[in-house]
Amino acid sequence: MIPSFRFHISTSCGMARTGVISTPRGEIRTPAFMPVGTAGTVKAMMPDSVRATGADILLGNTYHLMLRPGAERVARLGGLHRFMNWERPILTDSGGFQVMSLSSLRKLTEEGVTFRSHYDGSRHKLTPERSMEIQRLLGSDIVMCFDECPALPATEAEVAKSMQLSMRWAQRSRDAFGDRPGHALFGIMQGGVTRDLREESAQALRAIGFDGYAVGGLAVGEGQAAMFGVLDYAPGFLPEDKPRYLMGVGKPDDIVGAVERGIDMMDCVLPSRSGRTGQGWTRRGSVNIRNARHADDPRPLDEACTCPACRNYSRAYLHHVVRSGEIIGSMLLTWHNLHYFQELMQGLRDAITAGRLPQFVADFHALRAEGDIEPL
Amino acid sequence: MIPSFRFHISTSCGMARTGVISTPRGEIRTPAFMPVGTAGTVKAMMPDSVRATGADILLGNTYHLMLRPGAERVARLGGLHRFMNWERPILTDSGGFQVMSLSSLRKLTEEGVTFRSHYDGSRHKLTPERSMEIQRLLGSDIVMCFDECPALPATEAEVAKSMQLSMRWAQRSRDAFGDRPGHALFGIMQGGVTRDLREESAQALRAIGFDGYAVGGLAVGEGQAAMFGVLDYAPGFLPEDKPRYLMGVGKPDDIVGAVERGIDMMDCVLPSRSGRTGQGWTRRGSVNIRNARHADDPRPLDEACTCPACRNYSRAYLHHVVRSGEIIGSMLLTWHNLHYFQELMQGLRDAITAGRLPQFVADFHALRAEGDIEPL
Ligand SMILES: [Zn+2]
Ligand SMILES: [Zn+2]
Repeated sequence: MIPSFRFHISTSCGMARTGVISTPRGEIRTPAFMPVGTAGTVKAMMPDSVRATGADILLGNTYHLMLRPGAERVARLGGLHRFMNWERPILTDSGGFQVMSLSSLRKLTEEGVTFRSHYDGSRHKLTPERSMEIQRLLGSDIVMCFDECPALPATEAEVAKSMQLSMRWAQRSRDAFGDRPGHALFGIMQGGVTRDLREESAQALRAIGFDGYAVGGLAVGEGQAAMFGVLDYAPGFLPEDKPRYLMGVGKPDDIVGAVERGIDMMDCVLPSRSGRTGQGWTRRGSVNIRNARHADDPRPLDEACTCPACRNYSRAYLHHVVRSGEIIGSMLLTWHNLHYFQELMQGLRDAITAGRLPQFVADFHALRAEGDIEPL
Repeated sequence: MIPSFRFHISTSCGMARTGVISTPRGEIRTPAFMPVGTAGTVKAMMPDSVRATGADILLGNTYHLMLRPGAERVARLGGLHRFMNWERPILTDSGGFQVMSLSSLRKLTEEGVTFRSHYDGSRHKLTPERSMEIQRLLGSDIVMCFDECPALPATEAEVAKSMQLSMRWAQRSRDAFGDRPGHALFGIMQGGVTRDLREESAQALRAIGFDGYAVGGLAVGEGQAAMFGVLDYAPGFLPEDKPRYLMGVGKPDDIVGAVERGIDMMDCVLPSRSGRTGQGWTRRGSVNIRNARHADDPRPLDEACTCPACRNYSRAYLHHVVRSGEIIGSMLLTWHNLHYFQELMQGLRDAITAGRLPQFVADFHALRAEGDIEPL
């Protein structure tokens, strides 16, 4: 018998909660941060290194993988887990968001979206049914409904119309997903920053019934205050006993604020992408290692960090290799950033378990307010 | 008491020999292949991964490091070993060769070379004395004499004149190096493809006395036949009991031919550089993983290879990530290539020890003649 997909909340602290999502491919400790493995790799990282940072689950991008190398090809090669050498859980997005942000010549109809690949201009079509098929071919453990996220700025009427289309697509996604023991399908709440629309969307999703629920349409440029404004009420519209996933979030302070508001899962390219541009995230905020002040600094990026970049290298070395365009600069800073993000998640989980989340959050902000260590 | 620099030959087989160079930072099994860590990193590799391939020693480039981050800076930061997190032996070249190949506005005098940095156009000067100082600041275990390698094509008279200048610089290098227990200084034989000049150069170096001797001025475009032509006699001009280092070599068949002719050490950017362009080196020759024939191939690059690229990934995956420009493509192929080169060295050492080098060489060429595995 295939083990089922389950979510167990062990402790709550205010709206925040900590627990474990169990899947046939392993457990996911929540609140969880998912590194992004866009095209079958967390950029500049070996999978065992990603795991060493503490990641329980990766996110893969349907849009990228369907175009290159292609979902059918990945399936012939044994699925995405084997292809990319990551045997633990994988969540795939539906492709909808990146069709909107990356492809050209999009045409949106009730049926779905036709578009041209940003790689080679080839024509493709995504519908709820095709998105479910692609995510099945990839072997995704957590499948996301195909939805539409309206381009901003949008009127409330446009947001409402888009949300209602997404809810019809959510039903079609549910129907197409079928019964796949051990695999989960998550619905995606839309509705912009309008409380009534968020509530309407949540009710529509609950009526269909999903294994988890994402809060979509945030972290798209609305700013942290607007995002937290929605998160002050939106998670409460969703079932308490299912995982809540905030897509595309975020900076460390976004993550902390989201967890405080009842979010269980997040993903973001930030730690890996900024690792490739010389930006390091630490307990004290962010550090631009390209800055000349680091050229002679023998100290590690963060003396309290146990990642290989901080254990084995000086800021001066990181500065040198990043400025020189050396690949190891991307490798080390990405590793550090992913390590820091996972350490932050462990800190949040421990604080919730111990019932001292408010103190943890206060300490978190206080240390960041101090800023980076003084130059030598 | 600081352990000294020693070379012990355990077995010979024809001109080939196998043994161990002992240094305070560890042993170097010979024949040895040294991966190149140009600017303080073996590109796309963590140092512990380089070590895992079997490397006992790295090469660092004086020219690159003196310009960026600067030798005095590296010294302030504790030396190159600590800077780049590689505690085993490091050999540094003298900078002379790369001044000639990379910098602009060179001016050569008896004293040394002035030139402009290819990074930023800044003016610099290298002399035998400054090269010794830089290599000392870096903390190099094996220091190379500052020499001049004439640009090809060159007349025999030009080669002779250049060689004689290099021999005067060798004496100045020896004088400037001084007495540094545990550190070695290698002389560099020049003389192009002219036997008499090679002999004259070797005698000049032997008269000065060095801890090891390099064969310079080869692998600069003269072709394998001309190179082997020189190697048929040149190593015999050098002391039998000192390491012989062939600079900048090479392809696997160059390495095998050089070892057969009595070479103990080599270095080359080939395995790492070709790993970043999608070329994999195997027992069967070289494979361009970008080729469309690999797109659906579930087999490893080399089924007999135990490196992470071959143990964990298909050719289809390597094809995908290399074609997609993903950093992990460079990481995996570089790792594989370095692993293969070290495996070849181990095979050569074992064959010499067992007195069956001719059979090993015959098998080596026979498998390469078969070429890559057939497409599926
Ligand atoms: Zn770190
Ligand atoms: Zn391999």
